[in-house]
Amino acid sequence: MPLDLGAKGSCHIGGNVSTNAGGIRLLRYGSLHGSVLGVEAVLADGTVIDCLSSLRKDNTGYDLKQLFIGSEGTLGMVTKVSILCPRRPKSVNVAFLGCSSFDDVLATFKDAKGMLEEVLSAYEFLDHECMKINVKYLNMTNPLSDYPFYVLVETSGSNAAHDEEKLNTFLETVMETGHVVDGTVATDISKIKNIWSLRESIAEALMHDGTVYKYDVTLPQDQFYEIVEDMRDRVGDAATRVVGYGHVGDGNLHLNITSPTHSPTLLASIEPFVYEWVAKHSGSISAEHGLGFKKKNYIQYSKSNSAIKLMQDMKKLMDPKGILNPYKTVPSR
Amino acid sequence: MPLDLGAKGSCHIGGNVSTNAGGIRLLRYGSLHGSVLGVEAVLADGTVIDCLSSLRKDNTGYDLKQLFIGSEGTLGMVTKVSILCPRRPKSVNVAFLGCSSFDDVLATFKDAKGMLEEVLSAYEFLDHECMKINVKYLNMTNPLSDYPFYVLVETSGSNAAHDEEKLNTFLETVMETGHVVDGTVATDISKIKNIWSLRESIAEALMHDGTVYKYDVTLPQDQFYEIVEDMRDRVGDAATRVVGYGHVGDGNLHLNITSPTHSPTLLASIEPFVYEWVAKHSGSISAEHGLGFKKKNYIQYSKSNSAIKLMQDMKKLMDPKGILNPYKTVPSR
Repeated sequence: MPLDLGAKGSCHIGGNVSTNAGGIRLLRYGSLHGSVLGVEAVLADGTVIDCLSSLRKDNTGYDLKQLFIGSEGTLGMVTKVSILCPRRPKSVNVAFLGCSSFDDVLATFKDAKGMLEEVLSAYEFLDHECMKINVKYLNMTNPLSDYPFYVLVETSGSNAAHDEEKLNTFLETVMETGHVVDGTVATDISKIKNIWSLRESIAEALMHDGTVYKYDVTLPQDQFYEIVEDMRDRVGDAATRVVGYGHVGDGNLHLNITSPTHSPTLLASIEPFVYEWVAKHSGSISAEHGLGFKKKNYIQYSKSNSAIKLMQDMKKLMDPKGILNPYKTVPSR
Repeated sequence: MPLDLGAKGSCHIGGNVSTNAGGIRLLRYGSLHGSVLGVEAVLADGTVIDCLSSLRKDNTGYDLKQLFIGSEGTLGMVTKVSILCPRRPKSVNVAFLGCSSFDDVLATFKDAKGMLEEVLSAYEFLDHECMKINVKYLNMTNPLSDYPFYVLVETSGSNAAHDEEKLNTFLETVMETGHVVDGTVATDISKIKNIWSLRESIAEALMHDGTVYKYDVTLPQDQFYEIVEDMRDRVGDAATRVVGYGHVGDGNLHLNITSPTHSPTLLASIEPFVYEWVAKHSGSISAEHGLGFKKKNYIQYSKSNSAIKLMQDMKKLMDPKGILNPYKTVPSR
């Protein structure tokens, strides 16, 4: 499956397609707009649209299946899907690294792209606060000492010896330049799972703080972590914690803020500040989670008025009575 | 650039995006629906739709840029594009192989996928007739002896030693099993160019026969070459030549038939036979060339009535006066 994500235990493929889920391997296998080959969908009037092809190339008319990928069920209900699956990799390696600064995280990513290239399948990061709550609430073990940032690098390939050689050359380089201070490598499945769980358990661990304000943004790499620091300065003691983690490889940051109970004052301090910050840096206010009900009225921070109008026209054309996943994704006129 | 195609000397990026061009490396880098990150387009009423993001993840409302990819300019004029480009490979190898049967071409492809995997960047084939006209009309040299089929395998990767080792293991295997009878490998740029030109010159060489009837279809691998043989049987001496070549890796066959001058009798023998044949095998009557003016009324061979109706509705919504690339792609009601 070209898609993998933290929610893999509970999500459905139809939902993945409807929300254009991104996840941890988009870096390698691309977005569902490229890997979904066919869709069958049911329109608002009950018409079944059969675009359930499994062909890799088909340029006969408009590519209608794209309408249903990421439109959150508001243009049609996805009932069948055909997806291009890469071969299962014969060799998987995971390295977990400690970095002293976010600049080091970025420099290490640059080296990973250059030296691991076609076998690089994930490049994730978590900050010190994320590791702290993993240890505190979930009794997890930090395999390294304490560092401001942690990076998870995964390779997937067809030749174990080649992949390991590429990974070792990469690790020697980043240790020599000092961008990485410490690290551990896993090749057996149980150790790989343990390392991945440090990254994937963060959402669960955060809930132990009480209320979680979740933001899922795309930002240019240079500003990727700056928003976390600015948010920390802004909310100060009003929040229990401000953390950043996510998919460095795709520019997709999960910015989460916690407090013991829901606080309207804290929320007012976060929003619309967070959206304005992202818009100022030409980012996306929803990288992969979609707009749904909560964020549909903030769409103008990432999309132009003419684009929003065209979306409204399409919604009206395909669902004139507004019965498909109503009140979501696209703001009413 | 993630896209490469025979027309690279004359085509434009805006046209590539508008036609969803596929080309020779789709196998590796996927379709433009995945690699185009942003589009600016002008609608029929002059509105500029700015979806010119360069973000890899952005789920804020409908992914409007998809409307302009492959709709052949009938929904809007593409004026700016942002494309995700892979790193330039540090190492490129090309092997040119001779096979005794099309089954051998397919068996060799299976081995290529399994053994070259992440470094495989193209898998193309040409039949004996294609090679014959390359030699006859363009004075090209066949680097091998005469075989019924020729295969071009390309690897692109970041480590020359690893890539060559993978390629050699693959070549040893396919020679041992007998799927490949003969072959040559190129690593220097001029020899690589010569081999690629054997594949890319076919369209030009065919024109020397006189009139060329071009079909660009996607078919399941098992039936991939059968249509060429069936067409040869069908048209007999009415045609100068029936040839097959193209992108085995994507299931995309270029089926071309030539005659000294335009012959309505020959054309009537080819069409709609070719479309019926493709539809019967659940293929696409236009893999990558689009429908344009000539093929728009054959769309029903690859798309259902409900899908065609939705396309017509979208065209009417976005271009009510029908002024954008008129009379093309979608049949009138």
